[in-house]
Amino acid sequence: MRLARIAHPEGVAFVAVEGDLDAAADQVMVAEIAEHPFGQPQFTGRRWPLADVRLLAPILPTKVICVGKNYAEHAREMGGEAPENPVIFLKPSTSVVGPNAAIKLPRDSSRVDFEGELAAVVGQPCKDVPASRARDVLLGFTIANDVTARDQQQADGQWTRGKGHDTFCPLGPWIDTTIDPADLALRTELDGEVKQDSRTSLLLHDVPKLVEWISRVMTLLPGDVILTGTPAGVGPMRAGQTVSVTVEGLGTLTNTVAAR
Amino acid sequence: MRLARIAHPEGVAFVAVEGDLDAAADQVMVAEIAEHPFGQPQFTGRRWPLADVRLLAPILPTKVICVGKNYAEHAREMGGEAPENPVIFLKPSTSVVGPNAAIKLPRDSSRVDFEGELAAVVGQPCKDVPASRARDVLLGFTIANDVTARDQQQADGQWTRGKGHDTFCPLGPWIDTTIDPADLALRTELDGEVKQDSRTSLLLHDVPKLVEWISRVMTLLPGDVILTGTPAGVGPMRAGQTVSVTVEGLGTLTNTVAAR
Repeated sequence: MRLARIAHPEGVAFVAVEGDLDAAADQVMVAEIAEHPFGQPQFTGRRWPLADVRLLAPILPTKVICVGKNYAEHAREMGGEAPENPVIFLKPSTSVVGPNAAIKLPRDSSRVDFEGELAAVVGQPCKDVPASRARDVLLGFTIANDVTARDQQQADGQWTRGKGHDTFCPLGPWIDTTIDPADLALRTELDGEVKQDSRTSLLLHDVPKLVEWISRVMTLLPGDVILTGTPAGVGPMRAGQTVSVTVEGLGTLTNTVAAR
Repeated sequence: MRLARIAHPEGVAFVAVEGDLDAAADQVMVAEIAEHPFGQPQFTGRRWPLADVRLLAPILPTKVICVGKNYAEHAREMGGEAPENPVIFLKPSTSVVGPNAAIKLPRDSSRVDFEGELAAVVGQPCKDVPASRARDVLLGFTIANDVTARDQQQADGQWTRGKGHDTFCPLGPWIDTTIDPADLALRTELDGEVKQDSRTSLLLHDVPKLVEWISRVMTLLPGDVILTGTPAGVGPMRAGQTVSVTVEGLGTLTNTVAAR
């Protein structure tokens, strides 16, 4: 199932996205889910063409946990080797925006980079989850852009400011509850030019390992999002550009870039 | 006003703590607030003696923003100089616990330190707040313990894991809405022995400056908590010990320490 969150003419709702995504947009329908998408979703019976609604971030997480240097080639382009264990950091929930929202460049940064990533969405409260049980606690997978003010990240040492600005965590377009994340093509394009082109099979620490590592530290709650790290090819964006992250089977997360 | 959150015989509520805190505990009363304590609190009329209820963390924040090395002497004891600008990091909301709750030592850390701190609580949604207007967006002040697995903090470089474990953010005992935070004595005791003894007037970046700096990055929401940094004297805790952070005029935040 593909779970999304939408703005429709009368409000906001979780929905399931139905049909073949290669079909024309007015052929794809979304079906409203009562309350929330965790557990067994209940449908209200209301449906809209996807073309008539606006996709929002598919979930509003209580926390966004990210992993640094989780592709060897990206660790090298950042000037180091990948650490033996995952290095985690947090983005504030206020940084989350949805598909097609504008990434707003802070006035006090001179370089803001895209970082296309596979993201896992937690489906139930959990702590100390062994890797072998990780899939059971996940709702599914979506796409993220771990937008980074590179100059601020480097100035501070800690990555919170550089990665924590409002609009710096685009998520979407939806959460796929059945996809296998082990070996998916991941591609980031800036104004249509391919900048990142890798596969999730190159993750140094795969999704089950990340769930085990993070849940050893902190309780994960339904809707929490884990950004799994970005491959090589990160680079700056300018106001007026469009950035798209495509993950095989998950679709494309597209955002514009704007001056604040 | 002193705002707290309590467990009472029938549930959980926000309350105002009434009366002289030096009086006997059964003389101090708490008055139930309808809904939430932001804006002008409405009282339900229900009251309990403080001695008959259990204090919880006074607020459940959507985010906890912390500041590193904000007292010069602490920066030096950590082996460096204080940075020119505030360095911020986040603790996950799942790390928050209340007064008298146990701080649980992770099995995979060999050194867990106390860090007593003054904390500011945000009262309204805000962004880009100038220092001169900072007090207007704050609900008040409370006490925090920025508990830190020092070995993990140093191993990772990023501080999220070492500071992000469940129970690593004791908050309380209440939020004082009228206190002036500019020059308050701050003292941390471990099993009654004074370990940290400083004043908030020694903060390198004071509360208004922190609100300005952080809100330039991220939207602050009602209930968000800003930990202002810890003075010199940090040190390790062992299971079975009791740690208390006292801030002049705010009371004392006491927690036990337990093996996980």
